[in-house]
Amino acid sequence: MDMNHPEPLHVGLLDIDLCGPSVPFLLGLEEQDVHQCDEGWVPVYTSAEKKLAVMSIGFLLKNRSDAVIWRGPKKTAMIKQFLEDVNWDELDYLIIDTPPGTSDEHITVMECLKTVNTDGAIIVTTPQEMALEDVRKEVTFCKKTGINILGIVENMSGFVCPNCSECTNIFSSGGGQSLAELAQVPHLGTLPIDPRVGELAGTGKACVTELPNCTTTEVLQKIVQTITVGG
Amino acid sequence: MDMNHPEPLHVGLLDIDLCGPSVPFLLGLEEQDVHQCDEGWVPVYTSAEKKLAVMSIGFLLKNRSDAVIWRGPKKTAMIKQFLEDVNWDELDYLIIDTPPGTSDEHITVMECLKTVNTDGAIIVTTPQEMALEDVRKEVTFCKKTGINILGIVENMSGFVCPNCSECTNIFSSGGGQSLAELAQVPHLGTLPIDPRVGELAGTGKACVTELPNCTTTEVLQKIVQTITVGG
Repeated sequence: MDMNHPEPLHVGLLDIDLCGPSVPFLLGLEEQDVHQCDEGWVPVYTSAEKKLAVMSIGFLLKNRSDAVIWRGPKKTAMIKQFLEDVNWDELDYLIIDTPPGTSDEHITVMECLKTVNTDGAIIVTTPQEMALEDVRKEVTFCKKTGINILGIVENMSGFVCPNCSECTNIFSSGGGQSLAELAQVPHLGTLPIDPRVGELAGTGKACVTELPNCTTTEVLQKIVQTITVGG
Repeated sequence: MDMNHPEPLHVGLLDIDLCGPSVPFLLGLEEQDVHQCDEGWVPVYTSAEKKLAVMSIGFLLKNRSDAVIWRGPKKTAMIKQFLEDVNWDELDYLIIDTPPGTSDEHITVMECLKTVNTDGAIIVTTPQEMALEDVRKEVTFCKKTGINILGIVENMSGFVCPNCSECTNIFSSGGGQSLAELAQVPHLGTLPIDPRVGELAGTGKACVTELPNCTTTEVLQKIVQTITVGG
């Protein structure tokens, strides 16, 4: 997806939402297993070219209904293992997907990555005031713990009726933009609700290849460009 | 809201989402403070009639942007205090609003309430497959820890275009129903997306009084009736 990079990048995606790991389903990898090698755990790759390496506790559960009923310390130990014991190989980028909040998962990642040269955090919000309440706390977390904020993405902003093409801002709109101004961080983009994109979840197909002309694809490509050129 | 109860009920609402407390905003109580009395903390009441008593860590934060950067043990201690040190007075029902997941908050509440005669848990999902993934894990949590499941509510199911009245199932639909069948628990109801209901958030006004004829109100009233008559 990086327009300025002649060679495709090697990217790692680490899902640290231990109680609600959604990455295996989203990428259509639910049947995959993680294996052990001499160098540690082998992540799951989405293709033979091994451009995207994925790790999630979802791969370690026997059944998709299995619940991880763990208090903080066990979650912390697992996240440390994901960062230290996975054989990520050579990566251009490691993306860490966190659950919402400012607790064990976030504190652990922040502490583990302190010694590494990290680019920063991307904060994703939905436009309604209630979501912004939570995201304001996440901005405070990043500022307090010294994490650079790359920017804010507003997701689920506006719905275009497939029948009459009228756009309704279901959950109000503009929240991402105004929060970005308030927090003095970049507003990276605004993603609409597009049922066609939602239908791709779980199929292993990406909207950037399947729906090259939709707004979601355009916004996502612009975000990637901003982050990789800026980084 | 209980049709079979001649006298209004006394209800307590405890928000144990410590990193993202949304109850004070939702009920229009953000400026309220919690006070201390001889019997413990005094909850915030929504009216002079004291029919709804509310407790949330949001009332204890100086600023709505303040982040609670706590690991599990501190969260556990706070939740225990909310259950033991709040002067709830005589309540007909205590409703506990949890964050998503199956971790510290849920384990603590489950352990604290083991000795009390609790009615059970209501599980709220949105219809898309990704949300159902998480909710399946919450069903497993309840079954493993012996919590009775009162039923599943499907929220954000379908959007009626205000322009052409065409209903689009933005995030697919029927997930709540099929999960309820799978888990063999009641399906309590299906709430649509209604921008008019969303606009009431933060105003302190309830949709059951402001929008008496909308689908959301009808479904909510039916859910309350099912739960209170069944309970």
